Amino acid sequence: MTKTNSGRFFEDYTLGQVIQHAVPRTVSGGERALYHALYPARHALHSSDTFAQSCGLPASPMDDLITFHTVFGKTVPDVSLNAVANLGYAEGRFLAPVYPGDTLTSRSEVIGIKQNSNGKSGVVYVRTTGTNQHGTDVLSYVRWVMVRKGDLNAPAPETVIPDLGKVVAVDDLVIPEGLNFSDYDFGLAGEPHRWGDYQVGEIIDHVDGVTIEEAEHMLATRLWQNTAKVHFDATNREDGKRLIYGGHVISMARALSFNGLANAQMIVGLNGGAHANPCFSGDTIRAWTEVLDRADTDAPGVGALRLRLVATKGKAGPLKGEDGKYAPDVLLDLDYWALIPQ
Amino acid sequence: MTKTNSGRFFEDYTLGQVIQHAVPRTVSGGERALYHALYPARHALHSSDTFAQSCGLPASPMDDLITFHTVFGKTVPDVSLNAVANLGYAEGRFLAPVYPGDTLTSRSEVIGIKQNSNGKSGVVYVRTTGTNQHGTDVLSYVRWVMVRKGDLNAPAPETVIPDLGKVVAVDDLVIPEGLNFSDYDFGLAGEPHRWGDYQVGEIIDHVDGVTIEEAEHMLATRLWQNTAKVHFDATNREDGKRLIYGGHVISMARALSFNGLANAQMIVGLNGGAHANPCFSGDTIRAWTEVLDRADTDAPGVGALRLRLVATKGKAGPLKGEDGKYAPDVLLDLDYWALIPQ
Amino acid sequence: MTKTNSGRFFEDYTLGQVIQHAVPRTVSGGERALYHALYPARHALHSSDTFAQSCGLPASPMDDLITFHTVFGKTVPDVSLNAVANLGYAEGRFLAPVYPGDTLTSRSEVIGIKQNSNGKSGVVYVRTTGTNQHGTDVLSYVRWVMVRKGDLNAPAPETVIPDLGKVVAVDDLVIPEGLNFSDYDFGLAGEPHRWGDYQVGEIIDHVDGVTIEEAEHMLATRLWQNTAKVHFDATNREDGKRLIYGGHVISMARALSFNGLANAQMIVGLNGGAHANPCFSGDTIRAWTEVLDRADTDAPGVGALRLRLVATKGKAGPLKGEDGKYAPDVLLDLDYWALIPQ
Repeated sequence: MTKTNSGRFFEDYTLGQVIQHAVPRTVSGGERALYHALYPARHALHSSDTFAQSCGLPASPMDDLITFHTVFGKTVPDVSLNAVANLGYAEGRFLAPVYPGDTLTSRSEVIGIKQNSNGKSGVVYVRTTGTNQHGTDVLSYVRWVMVRKGDLNAPAPETVIPDLGKVVAVDDLVIPEGLNFSDYDFGLAGEPHRWGDYQVGEIIDHVDGVTIEEAEHMLATRLWQNTAKVHFDATNREDGKRLIYGGHVISMARALSFNGLANAQMIVGLNGGAHANPCFSGDTIRAWTEVLDRADTDAPGVGALRLRLVATKGKAGPLKGEDGKYAPDVLLDLDYWALIPQ
Repeated sequence: MTKTNSGRFFEDYTLGQVIQHAVPRTVSGGERALYHALYPARHALHSSDTFAQSCGLPASPMDDLITFHTVFGKTVPDVSLNAVANLGYAEGRFLAPVYPGDTLTSRSEVIGIKQNSNGKSGVVYVRTTGTNQHGTDVLSYVRWVMVRKGDLNAPAPETVIPDLGKVVAVDDLVIPEGLNFSDYDFGLAGEPHRWGDYQVGEIIDHVDGVTIEEAEHMLATRLWQNTAKVHFDATNREDGKRLIYGGHVISMARALSFNGLANAQMIVGLNGGAHANPCFSGDTIRAWTEVLDRADTDAPGVGALRLRLVATKGKAGPLKGEDGKYAPDVLLDLDYWALIPQ
Repeated sequence: MTKTNSGRFFEDYTLGQVIQHAVPRTVSGGERALYHALYPARHALHSSDTFAQSCGLPASPMDDLITFHTVFGKTVPDVSLNAVANLGYAEGRFLAPVYPGDTLTSRSEVIGIKQNSNGKSGVVYVRTTGTNQHGTDVLSYVRWVMVRKGDLNAPAPETVIPDLGKVVAVDDLVIPEGLNFSDYDFGLAGEPHRWGDYQVGEIIDHVDGVTIEEAEHMLATRLWQNTAKVHFDATNREDGKRLIYGGHVISMARALSFNGLANAQMIVGLNGGAHANPCFSGDTIRAWTEVLDRADTDAPGVGALRLRLVATKGKAGPLKGEDGKYAPDVLLDLDYWALIPQ
């Protein structure tokens, strides 16, 4: 019997199945420093203990996307090793900040399943939850992937498609305990724009571009213990290219969005997301944001913005073509909630 | 109104103006580890808690250039986003060591201003100060940059050129509290040469060379939250090259200088510096040092050396041509004070 | 007199000579995070404080190979700066775990010496010991290198070849104090295979491959303060290639071996090793393991496996040719003891 993990195939998933993912991970100032080296991340709350403390937190939490990548990375050997495509995200909620010294684990529940009509693959929906060493959940999100069948003769399961919200309701967003933007220092944060300055429909071009190198995206992807071989093995594709982990594009775009959204400090909800086209080394990533919605919260001085973050690999053009498909230069279309001072 | 930062133009600076730079930064063992991965840094005081403690310090301080880059990086969005050239440094003094856990902020005061005769740009002199979370200043230095005018019709300001010292006076150097080289372990430090072994005029060829990769200089420059797009965006120049942050060359040359100056443990003064020519990926950096001066200090066993550190991208040749200009292979000409056991 | 280190030549070594290597190093969560970014390391004991605590340790120790590289790196300026070849390892024992905050030093004793018949070089055997800030030895190993003579007229020393064990005896392996695999969580570790599931002679193909970039191996090699110029200076060889530090291949192969050996948590013995062929940027590293032996230990639930870890740069083929030499695709042949739950 082989001892190596060949990953789950479509027929290995059943509705209600719960998978405890392996390799808990303790994060430290090391992961934070690497995050700052890999992305032009400048949001002050994730950069400075003193700034975070002035906002009511005990210390500077790890970037929310460090939490996302760490939790996500653990699911790869169980969920997406035989995945054909990462189809979407929904109902993502950041439930508690993660601090240096915390240890994260991940588990996933299969909440939907549907064999494709070709009989060769199917779609699996999982709700993944990240938990810290105190048993507190820190993140929950749904993603669905297309997975190959290993045994084409395996019977098709009964189709169950979960009823997923198109957007996380404002009342379901979890504001970190103690967060208070009443004494927020806009000068130290880097921009004067507050919640009320953003209008629904407003588009912000984040201006800057970053050209991606092989070494960087591999460092990043390994850091999250994401083992998908397409990211690391240049012999894996006929064209010799290594596919860049979609999360690398998310973090790059989010970091670029500092320029125009410096005060959108924390991500609290992930409404949806699509990796529209693959990204490769040598691509220059740019980003723009559309303000989709605004909401009040109960926390002092804290408002929420619903933002569409789009990453492109060329100059920004139309998002979609006449056929309704993403334009070839679009890499990412992400819909999230962020907290910003009022 | 655009929400993104287009940077200050020449006419946006006024004499006496004080700019509080954004994004305070807490540093940790992560930044230190990355520094060791990015540069061949081996000075024992910055590598080992026990060595630093044997020299009277509470723990190993962050490399002095981590402090410099962190403080400098914060100034970029306010001072050099529209800079044509980084012209020089003067009166740099390291005022207190920085330790893991410290949070740094930067502010700059405009101390000089002069419009160029072409009316299209001007020179701005700023004195930048870095401060830790206790309100203690950790670094102060002057730099001057050439900045484009945004509005060519803006009136020229009255010219004020600050009277800058050519060298930081020995009495103005700040020796870290408690520093004591009386029981200095030359074996653990790596070389036997002490203060008295260096002669004014002596030249030390540091022998080793390091070939630079794109991924490395971008990791380094992002780590200091330096956002100048020329370092990251391959589409920014017609030749597709990314200009390497001058500070990357400073750190590389300083680290290479371990070989011959292993005991020049701490940088305490920055007398001047010029980025003589641009550096690009693929260049192989070498370094040599000329001993410019020697001085005694009040701290037990602690002497100071004034050193000229020159980085080249080929084999060392003459520093300047017959026209008085730097030879094309010279990247850096840095004049600094370092502390060394007597 | 030159102040730079030209390294020792063959005639500079004498039997019994003890060399205290320079530059003690304090490690932190930063080195650990970089290790995870550089290698696909996933062994749970080195990834998670909570997992390590469930195994009886106070916290997650640094990866054993971080200890090896840190101790090894310090020896380079004294032992292998003029080395022609790194010939072998023997009698390696990990004596105590290393934790964030620990400071490591290295010393070596010359235990064997033999001039080559050509009179131009010789072989030097050193036993290197790494020690932490409490004076506790953390690692001991023998390596032998071929070193050039500086003065061809220097007389040949009396030949002494140490009597080195071909394998570290099980009784000589040091099990970390408190280590207990009685309550080992195979689910969190990532695989169900325990000590009894591995058979002597069994071969495990670790499946995955990683293509190496220049920036990565240089970051890694610098991180261990290994200064050998062949790794960094593209002008050093006529073909413009930078030779990759053999330890980079060791760590890459060991990390790849997670897939099939996820429970072989700790390396405790290094029986031997050969860097069979040089590795260069662009090579895609794969790995396979042969189970060489199994042994019981006194620690609760803890067994030991003797493993041969082979790294190749192409698809796995025969290890050696008909001439008894390593096949050209073989990079590494490492023989080590690992601890695994029974």
